[in-house]
This record gives sequence, structure tokens and C-alpha cells, in this order.
Amino acid sequence: MGDDGDMTYTLVLLRHGESDWNAKNLFTGWVDVPLSEKGTEEALRGGDLLVDAGIEPDVVHTSLLRRAIMTANLALDRANRHWIPVKRHWRLNERHYGALQGKNKKEIREEYGEEQFMLWRRSYDVPPPAIEPGSEFSQDTDPRYAGEPIPASECLKDVLERALPYWESDVVPDLKAGKTVLVAAHGNSLRAIIKHLDGIDDDTISGLNVPTGIPLLYELDEDFKPTTPGGRYLDPSAAEAAIAAVANQGK
Amino acid sequence: MGDDGDMTYTLVLLRHGESDWNAKNLFTGWVDVPLSEKGTEEALRGGDLLVDAGIEPDVVHTSLLRRAIMTANLALDRANRHWIPVKRHWRLNERHYGALQGKNKKEIREEYGEEQFMLWRRSYDVPPPAIEPGSEFSQDTDPRYAGEPIPASECLKDVLERALPYWESDVVPDLKAGKTVLVAAHGNSLRAIIKHLDGIDDDTISGLNVPTGIPLLYELDEDFKPTTPGGRYLDPSAAEAAIAAVANQGK
Repeated sequence: MGDDGDMTYTLVLLRHGESDWNAKNLFTGWVDVPLSEKGTEEALRGGDLLVDAGIEPDVVHTSLLRRAIMTANLALDRANRHWIPVKRHWRLNERHYGALQGKNKKEIREEYGEEQFMLWRRSYDVPPPAIEPGSEFSQDTDPRYAGEPIPASECLKDVLERALPYWESDVVPDLKAGKTVLVAAHGNSLRAIIKHLDGIDDDTISGLNVPTGIPLLYELDEDFKPTTPGGRYLDPSAAEAAIAAVANQGK
Repeated sequence: MGDDGDMTYTLVLLRHGESDWNAKNLFTGWVDVPLSEKGTEEALRGGDLLVDAGIEPDVVHTSLLRRAIMTANLALDRANRHWIPVKRHWRLNERHYGALQGKNKKEIREEYGEEQFMLWRRSYDVPPPAIEPGSEFSQDTDPRYAGEPIPASECLKDVLERALPYWESDVVPDLKAGKTVLVAAHGNSLRAIIKHLDGIDDDTISGLNVPTGIPLLYELDEDFKPTTPGGRYLDPSAAEAAIAAVANQGK
């Protein structure tokens, strides 16, 4: 585990717990909604799972969105690692959902049809329509992004292309320094990292889901390839059940 | 305010809200106790006060203790500034209370008498007895301090001498960069900074108390001297009442 002589690096990915808008079935993207009560519980349980597995993060990387920040804060406090260094960057943010942000998923499906809906949700390289500057759920005047080249809509490919520079510049050096690294982020920014790590192709990645609040442990070899492809969820049966539930949603 | 052309720097000091051990009347020091429910409310109200005053911290510095970390997390989340960069250091920790950590204040006063009790609590340069390595409330095996020259007991003078290097190396550069800086810390680490900023002498500082959860705003001139000596509490009447209550405790 980084410092045991095996020359492996230890990475933990943690998707934030349920947010208020997950619960309301709205497209969220970069809209900065808080965790729901259930999401708060999920984050704390994520901390318990770290403790049970004996994993002690040395540094945490988060997005600039409160659902990931609060998930990290709660999980690390529970794991008695609240005091570790923190780094944040918008490049770990959720996929920008463009003009769909703030819209009800069911209504969008009814308005545009199943095919277009699934294309926006799951295609690798088709982004939703761009959000209008100045609209209610746009981030163009948000001070946290001032001067940054932020998107107006993204597909997963876009997420990967903006997340990887941060992965290389900030996460990899922490891993190389032998630190156990926690990345607390979002469904799609984590899928982008996983696609990169596991070398998943553009078609297959659409079927991959990351459950909320269950730490996903990767041990990486000296070439930053996973020693176990896909890593290992710290609660495998809960992860399997959550992934199966998502897969069955469309049926 | 840093960037308005007046060449002043903006600093906000925030003492953590009530902890579980404040409520139980125990010497706390470096023991890492959580906020009480009242302390959580105080931290959130601190965030409200920042919003009401239009103060938007650009960076936060905290100690390595969860009562300061959680206070910062809660106040910044409330103020919609949860996403700002975070720096943490043990040099902002509370005064180390040596062998008194974990002891009941009333019992110590009865055992050692009022004069010795007040000397340990309020003298500038008399530390309590050193804590025994390996004792229940010692930090000598705590991983967050591994390799650091941490104390076994401290008087306020010791706190000042270990806090100022961090002030100079990390806080001053952020101020010089024009950032509004929030320091979320403890009664004694904040008293040390205030002593330095306001040039308070060794005798007078013993009478100065910092109330919990009320942001204290300093505007500093180009020589880092306060434009208003003592700064300005964002809720002056609540601060005055809290200070008077402490002053009357001994009467």
C-alpha cells in the first residue's frame, strides 16, 4: 500500500451521497445542491467503511461542489482523518449538464423521447444543449470559477478531457509520494478516472455506474495500472445491489 | 478591503464554537473533542454573520483539531464559501494544557488552590506540568503530528512563539496577495495572533478573551497594523456580553 515495499499506490474513490436533487429527480450537474439526509448518512457510513478496512487517507481531493465537499468532510471526520490536507478543483466537478440543469428528468424524457434522453444521459460524446449565460442554473457569474475555462455543457468525453490534466498534475504526484489518496467527487468525474485507469473503451463505459457513498479502493502498480481491474468496493454486496438497481431502472 | 485601492488587508479570526468538553468543564488543549450541539449552532451563526457583513473569505486556515475544522466547515458552508482553499497546521492549535488535559477544572482548582489554578490558566509564561508520554490524553503517537516538534505543555508565550512562524510563512503571504483570510482556531492561538497584531503587552493580554463563534474582523494597513485597534466583532453586542460573562466568572 504505497509504503509496504510492494511499490503499489493506494487510491480511494468516493462518490458523494444522495443530494436533494437526486431525491427530486432533477438534472443537477454543476448546480450546487446540498446532501439529503440520506446522503449525509451515506457519507458517514463511507467513513465507517474506511475505518473497517484500515484505510487512512493522507490527502483528499474534492470538486468545488458542496455535495462532494460535505461527503469528504463527513466521511473523514467519522474516520478521524478530518485533519489531512485538502485540495479542491473544478476539474473534479460533476459533468456539466448544460441546458438540462434544473430540469426534471421525467419531463425531459417525455418532451424529447427516450432515445434523445438516453443519448444525453449515457452517450460518450454527445453533450446536451449548452446552458444560456445568465440563466437560473448557469455558473457563469459564480466567483469560484472566475477566470477558469469552464464548460457550458459536457459529455463524458469532455469530462475526461478536463479531469485528466488535474489527475496528472495533482493526484498522481500525491500517489507517487506514497500517500493514500482519497478523491471525493461525482458519478461522471469518477467514471472518467476509472475509464482512464482501467482502460475501458468508449462503448463499455456507458454501462458502468459508481454507487454513492461506498469507497472504491484501487491499488495501482508502478505504471498506475490497477492490480485488480475495476478496483474493490469496501462493501462489495452493497455496491453490487446499488449497481443492479441502476441497471434495472430502465427496464 | 485588500482590493479596493486603500491597500488594507482583510483578516477574519473565528474561535470555534462550544465543544463537548467546554460544556463538561474539562481542560481540553490538544484533545480532539467534537463541537457540542450549541457549538454547531454557533459555527453556523458565524457563517450568517459573515454573509450579513458581506465578507467573502478567499482562503481559510485552521488548526488540526476538529472543533476548529468543523467550525470552519459549517460557517463556510452556511456562507456559500465551502469551496475555498483550505490550509491546516498544528501551529494554530489550542494551547497544549500539559498534564491538565482531560482534568476537571473545578477539581484542579480545589486540589491546587486558586492562585496556582489562575497561574496555569492565565499567566503569560508559566506552563502547566508536562503531560506524560503515553498517557491517555497525550498526542505523542497521534499520526497528525508525526515528525513535528510538538509541545508537552504550553503557556501563552509558547503558543505565540510557535504560531507566529506559521502566521509569517502562510497567513501573511495570503493577505499580501489581496485575499480575504479566515483563520478558524482557538482561544489561545487567536489571543497570540491578536497580541502580535495589536502590540498588547504581556500583562494586559491575560485579561483579553475571544468569544466563541463571532467573527472578529481586522483591517490591517501596509505594515500589518490594525486600522482599528482590537478589530471589530461582527456582532459587537453579543461579543461584549460574552466577554463580560467570562470576566464575571471569577467574581
